[in-house]
Amino acid sequence: MILSVKTREKTELIDITSDINQLIKKSGVDQGLCMLYVPHTTAAVTINESADPSVKSDILMVLNQIVPWEANYRHLEGNSPAHVKSSLMGPSELITIENRRLVLGTWQGIFFCEFDGPRTRKVHVRISDEHFV
Amino acid sequence: MILSVKTREKTELIDITSDINQLIKKSGVDQGLCMLYVPHTTAAVTINESADPSVKSDILMVLNQIVPWEANYRHLEGNSPAHVKSSLMGPSELITIENRRLVLGTWQGIFFCEFDGPRTRKVHVRISDEHFV
Amino acid sequence: MILSVKTREKTELIDITSDINQLIKKSGVDQGLCMLYVPHTTAAVTINESADPSVKSDILMVLNQIVPWEANYRHLEGNSPAHVKSSLMGPSELITIENRRLVLGTWQGIFFCEFDGPRTRKVHVRISDEHFV
Repeated sequence: MILSVKTREKTELIDITSDINQLIKKSGVDQGLCMLYVPHTTAAVTINESADPSVKSDILMVLNQIVPWEANYRHLEGNSPAHVKSSLMGPSELITIENRRLVLGTWQGIFFCEFDGPRTRKVHVRISDEHFV
Repeated sequence: MILSVKTREKTELIDITSDINQLIKKSGVDQGLCMLYVPHTTAAVTINESADPSVKSDILMVLNQIVPWEANYRHLEGNSPAHVKSSLMGPSELITIENRRLVLGTWQGIFFCEFDGPRTRKVHVRISDEHFV
Repeated sequence: MILSVKTREKTELIDITSDINQLIKKSGVDQGLCMLYVPHTTAAVTINESADPSVKSDILMVLNQIVPWEANYRHLEGNSPAHVKSSLMGPSELITIENRRLVLGTWQGIFFCEFDGPRTRKVHVRISDEHFV
C-alpha cells in the first residue's frame, strides 16, 4: 500500500501514525510486521515524541544547524543539505503489529521527514503477518 | 520478549549483546531474524565496536558535540538533545540468527543508547524463524 | 550471500545497487524482502541519489565536517571518526523485492559507505520470499 503525504514547508516533520494504523486496520492483519519505506532521496522517516509538537521543531532546528544550508556543495540542484539529512534519518522503519495496531512506546509517533518541500510524497507501507517467537 | 536495561548515567552506551544472545538461546530458534526495538524517544540502539570501550565514549563525545546541550529549544522538558540523538541513532536494529546466535561482525556489539538517564528502560526483542534464500 | 566490496579511498561511497540486483536475480526470488547488513564497525550502508555522483561527495563532505578528524578521542587506533560515522549511517537497510528487482525510488541507489579505507569489505545480502499483504 502507498500512503500519500502532502508537505507544506521546506523542512517539516509530519505525524503519520494514525494514517499507518488505519492502513493496518484495513489490511486485516492482527499480528505481524509493518515496514515503512520512503522512496525519495530528500525525505526520510523517523520515530520520536508525538505528544509535544515542539520536539519535532527542535529536531529540525538541530538538523538544520548540523547540515549547513550553504557550503562548498558540488551537486548543482541546490538541495544537497536535504540529501544529507535524508541519509542521517534513514529511509525506513520497522515496527511490529499487535491487535491490529503498531506497537509503539507511550510517547512514540512516526514522522515523515520532508527536507526539500513542499511536495507530494509517498511512503510505501508493507504489512506482513510474520510471526515472532 | 522484553529486555530490561538499567542505565546509570545521563548519556551512556551499554553493551547488550550477550543479553540478546541469551534470549535467542531461550527461544530455541536456530536460524532466523532478530529485531530489536526501543520504545523510548530519548534512547536508541546502535551497533559498533565492543572490543575497546573507548569507542563508545568517543561516539557519545561526538554526539554531545553535534547536538548542543543548550540551544533555542522549544520543548520545555529540557531533554530535546536526547530526542534529537534518539532520531540520529534510530530505534531499531535487525540482525540475522545462525546457530542460535546473532550473526555479527568480529568487532561488532549491540549497544543500548541512553540519552536522558539514569532510568530503567526496555528493549523489545522479536525473534522469528524466517528463512533466507 | 556475501558481496565483496573493494574500496580505494579513506572515505568513500560506492554504488552497489546493480550488484545487489544481480544477486537477487540469481536467487530466483520474484517477490520478497532484501536485507543488507554490513559486519564492520567503520563502514555502513545508506540509500541516496545515484544519478548525480556529486551527491555522494556532498554527503561525505558534511559527515567529515560533523565528525572531526582530530578531537580528544580515547580510542587509540586513530579511527574513532569512522566508528562514529558508522553509527550515524547505520549497518543495515531493508528493501522489498518485486519482479526480481529491488523496489527503489526513481533516484535511489544503495551505497556502501567506507569510512576507514581502503580495505576489502563485506556486505551480507539476505533474501527472503516473505509475502506482504
